[in-house]
Amino acid sequence: MERLFGIDPWKLTSDTIDDNKRLQESLTAIGNGYMGLRGNFEEGYSGDTHIGTYIAGVWFPDKTKVGWWKIGYPDYFGKVINATNFIPVDIYVDEHKVDLAVDTVEQFHLELDMKEGVLRRSFVWKKEEVAILFRFTRFVSAHTTELAVVNIEVEMQTGIAELTLIPNLDGNVVNEDSNYEEQFWNELEKGHEPFPFLKTKTKENPFGTERFTVTTMMSNQSESAKKNAEKEQAMYVGERFFYPLKAGDQLTLTKYIAVITSRDVAADQQVEKAANIVKSAMDKGLQSVLKDHLAEWETRWNNADVQISGDDASQQGIRFNIFQLFSTYYGEDPRLNVGPKGFTGEKYGGATYWDTEACILPMYLSVTNEGTFRQLLVYRHNQLEQAYENAANQGLKGALYPMVTFTGIECHNEWEITFEEIHRNGAIAHGIFNYTTYTGNEDYLLNQGIDVLVGIARFWADRVHYSARKQQYMIHGVTGPNEYENNVSNNWYTNTMAQWCLQYTLETLEKVTDDKIRELKVSEEEQQKWTDISGNMYLPKDEALAVFVQHDSFLDKDLRPVNSLDPSERPINQNWSWDKILRSPFIKQADVLQGLYFLNHHYSQEEKERNFNFYEPMTVHESSLSPLVHSILASELGKKEKAFEMYERTARLDLDNYNNDTEDGLHITSMSGGWLSIVQGFAGMRTQTGTLSFAPYCPDQWDSYRFKLNYRERLLNVAVEKTAVTFQLEVGESLIFEVFGQSVTLEDTLTIAIEENSN
Amino acid sequence: MERLFGIDPWKLTSDTIDDNKRLQESLTAIGNGYMGLRGNFEEGYSGDTHIGTYIAGVWFPDKTKVGWWKIGYPDYFGKVINATNFIPVDIYVDEHKVDLAVDTVEQFHLELDMKEGVLRRSFVWKKEEVAILFRFTRFVSAHTTELAVVNIEVEMQTGIAELTLIPNLDGNVVNEDSNYEEQFWNELEKGHEPFPFLKTKTKENPFGTERFTVTTMMSNQSESAKKNAEKEQAMYVGERFFYPLKAGDQLTLTKYIAVITSRDVAADQQVEKAANIVKSAMDKGLQSVLKDHLAEWETRWNNADVQISGDDASQQGIRFNIFQLFSTYYGEDPRLNVGPKGFTGEKYGGATYWDTEACILPMYLSVTNEGTFRQLLVYRHNQLEQAYENAANQGLKGALYPMVTFTGIECHNEWEITFEEIHRNGAIAHGIFNYTTYTGNEDYLLNQGIDVLVGIARFWADRVHYSARKQQYMIHGVTGPNEYENNVSNNWYTNTMAQWCLQYTLETLEKVTDDKIRELKVSEEEQQKWTDISGNMYLPKDEALAVFVQHDSFLDKDLRPVNSLDPSERPINQNWSWDKILRSPFIKQADVLQGLYFLNHHYSQEEKERNFNFYEPMTVHESSLSPLVHSILASELGKKEKAFEMYERTARLDLDNYNNDTEDGLHITSMSGGWLSIVQGFAGMRTQTGTLSFAPYCPDQWDSYRFKLNYRERLLNVAVEKTAVTFQLEVGESLIFEVFGQSVTLEDTLTIAIEENSN
Repeated sequence: MERLFGIDPWKLTSDTIDDNKRLQESLTAIGNGYMGLRGNFEEGYSGDTHIGTYIAGVWFPDKTKVGWWKIGYPDYFGKVINATNFIPVDIYVDEHKVDLAVDTVEQFHLELDMKEGVLRRSFVWKKEEVAILFRFTRFVSAHTTELAVVNIEVEMQTGIAELTLIPNLDGNVVNEDSNYEEQFWNELEKGHEPFPFLKTKTKENPFGTERFTVTTMMSNQSESAKKNAEKEQAMYVGERFFYPLKAGDQLTLTKYIAVITSRDVAADQQVEKAANIVKSAMDKGLQSVLKDHLAEWETRWNNADVQISGDDASQQGIRFNIFQLFSTYYGEDPRLNVGPKGFTGEKYGGATYWDTEACILPMYLSVTNEGTFRQLLVYRHNQLEQAYENAANQGLKGALYPMVTFTGIECHNEWEITFEEIHRNGAIAHGIFNYTTYTGNEDYLLNQGIDVLVGIARFWADRVHYSARKQQYMIHGVTGPNEYENNVSNNWYTNTMAQWCLQYTLETLEKVTDDKIRELKVSEEEQQKWTDISGNMYLPKDEALAVFVQHDSFLDKDLRPVNSLDPSERPINQNWSWDKILRSPFIKQADVLQGLYFLNHHYSQEEKERNFNFYEPMTVHESSLSPLVHSILASELGKKEKAFEMYERTARLDLDNYNNDTEDGLHITSMSGGWLSIVQGFAGMRTQTGTLSFAPYCPDQWDSYRFKLNYRERLLNVAVEKTAVTFQLEVGESLIFEVFGQSVTLEDTLTIAIEENSN
Repeated sequence: MERLFGIDPWKLTSDTIDDNKRLQESLTAIGNGYMGLRGNFEEGYSGDTHIGTYIAGVWFPDKTKVGWWKIGYPDYFGKVINATNFIPVDIYVDEHKVDLAVDTVEQFHLELDMKEGVLRRSFVWKKEEVAILFRFTRFVSAHTTELAVVNIEVEMQTGIAELTLIPNLDGNVVNEDSNYEEQFWNELEKGHEPFPFLKTKTKENPFGTERFTVTTMMSNQSESAKKNAEKEQAMYVGERFFYPLKAGDQLTLTKYIAVITSRDVAADQQVEKAANIVKSAMDKGLQSVLKDHLAEWETRWNNADVQISGDDASQQGIRFNIFQLFSTYYGEDPRLNVGPKGFTGEKYGGATYWDTEACILPMYLSVTNEGTFRQLLVYRHNQLEQAYENAANQGLKGALYPMVTFTGIECHNEWEITFEEIHRNGAIAHGIFNYTTYTGNEDYLLNQGIDVLVGIARFWADRVHYSARKQQYMIHGVTGPNEYENNVSNNWYTNTMAQWCLQYTLETLEKVTDDKIRELKVSEEEQQKWTDISGNMYLPKDEALAVFVQHDSFLDKDLRPVNSLDPSERPINQNWSWDKILRSPFIKQADVLQGLYFLNHHYSQEEKERNFNFYEPMTVHESSLSPLVHSILASELGKKEKAFEMYERTARLDLDNYNNDTEDGLHITSMSGGWLSIVQGFAGMRTQTGTLSFAPYCPDQWDSYRFKLNYRERLLNVAVEKTAVTFQLEVGESLIFEVFGQSVTLEDTLTIAIEENSN
């Protein structure tokens, strides 16, 4: 655990440049769904730093790197690529380039305001008799997504000096993890009219995937500048501003930046489009542009804020989660999804892991509106054809959604993942189920969702095999959610989800139109086969222990709890060789328990209890997806201390750097963990049966908490205190739902007592 | 199957340049244990070709290439590297560079003489009125291993032309499979005194492994040359010879080449050493140098030749095997071992797979002498310390011999192999057992072998785990010999070999001196632990089928025979995606049966029969190690047709390109398969119990066969005909052994009848 920023309900603040600057950069990243960047310093930094600027949907197919090629491997690993760095403003005091890695600075202050979506930084730079105060303000507009703004205020405190500011656009960027140390961009064009701009294009690639042209433009406004000059280098444009300064002088430089890509605007019209955006921002002026931005964030927070009384660390954690999620994805563009690092780093490559359906959708259903969360389903439907192609590449029928992708084509590169972690298909289907039961709207399910379900059902039907010995269908050669095992036979979770997918598809087919059935070409025989498989699926269970068995040979392991490990061995993935991890009993993340979470309504309290008690003690939670599932189940089982421990681990995973890897970027796709732990965990919200229900309690560590829910055209406000829960209907018509198993009707406000040990 | 060369008992001959020139180059490779080269053309070739020149023990640590690094991965993949190409002699007719890829040639003839170890090639080159006959002779001396010779004879048949010959040494070579397209050599020095030479050194590497300096020198003798000039480029030296020729003119150029490495001679003394070798060869002259070479081959063949009557294809196959093996390794240097491609290619990297103990040692025990075959054991003993290091890198105790290595340190790069294919340790121990039972000499076992055995026993004792549920010791997370499965639990072969290693070590410890016990620091407690593990090892067996079970979930697979596959699907490793292979029931190579072969004396005929009948039909034999084991067991079980089919597949694996990959180089380490199939298979030789025994038969396809055996200071000649076997004692004292279970005494000659169905 490593906490860089002070506790504050709405802000991340720090008065030091941390030794682990990469971690600080990750935590101060900002984004607006369209683009974003790490918390790099405008003036540059000669110490260890990871410069990162990313544009949603702009990627490169980095040729797969493996020791020994095997048939079916994806050709490339698709990577989020570092794009033109648009924030730099080099600063020279006389001949000296300002560099916080070596210079003397005082009063350093760094502040990410999550309510406003603004990053601020200030410091006093000193050398001999010269002291200069610098104040930086930065945001990427939530209102006009192609727009970013950097504002610099300078105050000469003592001495005399000539200040030079060189705002620039720098395309000389690389991905640290590129497989062949290749730069992914070529320069296409640059110029200074109407404003300085740089147009770059991703390089040719042998796989024929889309190439992207991006124009980045800046307009630098500084009324107090004495003169300026242009500056050009390869993949670079800059402007030079000189200011002879004496004590008391002040100046401001505002850099308006527009970023336009060929995803939206043809290459030859990008300069014009960028100029319009920059021009419009200049005309409005900084305060007005900022106001538009703040208004957008205010609306978002109004629908989604969670308030916690009595624990500012928790409060800060949940707001940081929501802030980063909305910075990454707000559903404007159906071609996009939620990448594992958002705009905060480039590790893992790709976008769209199964995390989207497992973690993001369940939260977005409640905190955004239909226009936003339905995009997540549309995205998968749009990629159905590619999912069929992925399966065909493995010689299989049906649709296999990718482990990770930009286009729908699999672009991960380890066989243990690509070929084996096929349970992802179950999560895709479960997303459709989740959407349908939450919204109560079967329109998507019966018209588009069923296309996806049929593709997935066909995949499972071809991927299982019949074991003559056991006379049951089995699935061999898989990696379950627990990625600390590979190539196992009959992972209970995978088999269970496969069975459920087949059943759900069959049930749904009964409701669709005859036209749809014909369009899908699903024969009676095919349905018969699915019925046979789902009715005869092998689901390993140990009768003596009364638990579901993670996979066929799991119980033969040297079973022991995580607390038998020496603390120096943890996290095991940073201390143990891979073979030792693979054969150990230690579980990376919820596996059997993931099934009990997804299909929560299928299992009894006793089944959940036994499996939780058996598996959780062996779980190291080294995946960011793990704590939320455990927190929710622990709440359901009345294990309040465990639930809170897991809440903290998910809500403050990055803020407290629990997994010691946040310097690579934030764990965006599990950012919903805090929210889910509160709403599905502490408040016990369930929707799987189609009926909304709650079983709330307030953790001992808190005084109270409240959250909002967008539910079937209503806005609910739920406040949970120690002894009572109050539901308030902010928008919409009266609603019937369940609390502690009792049906209630909410007209306006409703308060229900929470009994001690009601869980 | 693809047969490029005509059938001939002693030669490979062809009158065409094959479209698959790489395959032709592999099959015409020559070597002398010290160095070797593929069958490239002296004059160059502009078509598809793989230039390859290799020097034993000269390698480079090519940085490991993987998608995602995991703890314990080896830093590098050690590669046999392409060294200075020393055979080139560029040929110009007037201004035209002779190039068989485009020029008109007639009477092309290519011939590898296996008896002599000489490669010959000739053709008539034609252009307009000019016709020139070229004859090439090439050998690497079996007598003076640093010496290679290329001789060119030219005859002007018609026309007039100016001929230019440019013999050269070309260091501009690359490994096609280098991970980062890196060249592995730097030029250190070059010159023309006393003869043209090039001195190169392997590049610096971050792993601190040995760097090699190699001097290659040539002396070109051509009395008929009219003039000559020197030629130099980067990494290149050449000499230019001009010959104005008219019809009837003849000329000869002899290129004497010396290759000296820092493995034997300090860098600053290499030029002198090379000059001595070249000078000495020049003084002797071509015929005398060739005579020395032929004499060495004659001796080798005298001790090892196998003669087959009635089947020239079989005869050619077995001689090609023996020829290539002796070209690769004849035990002169204890630092060397038998690389998977010998001097015929660079694929797989490394040298010294477990093939050495599994396939090479059993043959070398019989066809070479103690001075040669004992080196194979000494090699492992010398690398014991590194084996301890390999285990420590995985966090394990004891010694883990590498899957592949140059120095003893593991240098493979796939976790499924490196971490999991640990059964290799069993083969190392079995080599010691094999040597001891064959020679009857326990000296090595009790003084050096025991060091290795104790290291291996310690490894197994730490690598097993105790399954509380089954109350037995288990080994999870392994890859058995069948590399078409990974990360399985309780591979019967691995568990069986681990148990046997522990037992053999314990038995051996009872015979060693007290001093040795103290040196080894083996406590009573440690031995007690080994006794406990070996006595309680879980060995999966199916009672109903009465077979040993390949691993825990094997019998749940969709079991079906190879003949259920469509021929277009084979080989499956070139047609199926990896996941499909992994979960299929198809077996790459002997797995359970490998155990029945190694520990043949432990199992009943019935056990062998049942397991063979169960597993062989599911085996695709896509490893070169597979057919020999099946051929030997099939012979033992009286399955003569299967035995012969498997013999052909091993003996002519490369000549008939069964696995469609010989263009990458020959399968050197399985070259002993033909010999073992004859001697242990058809002739039924066994030595495991310490008693030599035979149960011979002659395959229906042959009239008879005979082979020689070096056995405990005797040279036996064994001739097997349809109805009788004749043993002849060529050297040594009388010998008692068993034939068909009956004890016999051989004084001079002994003939025993073979009864119909005696097997």
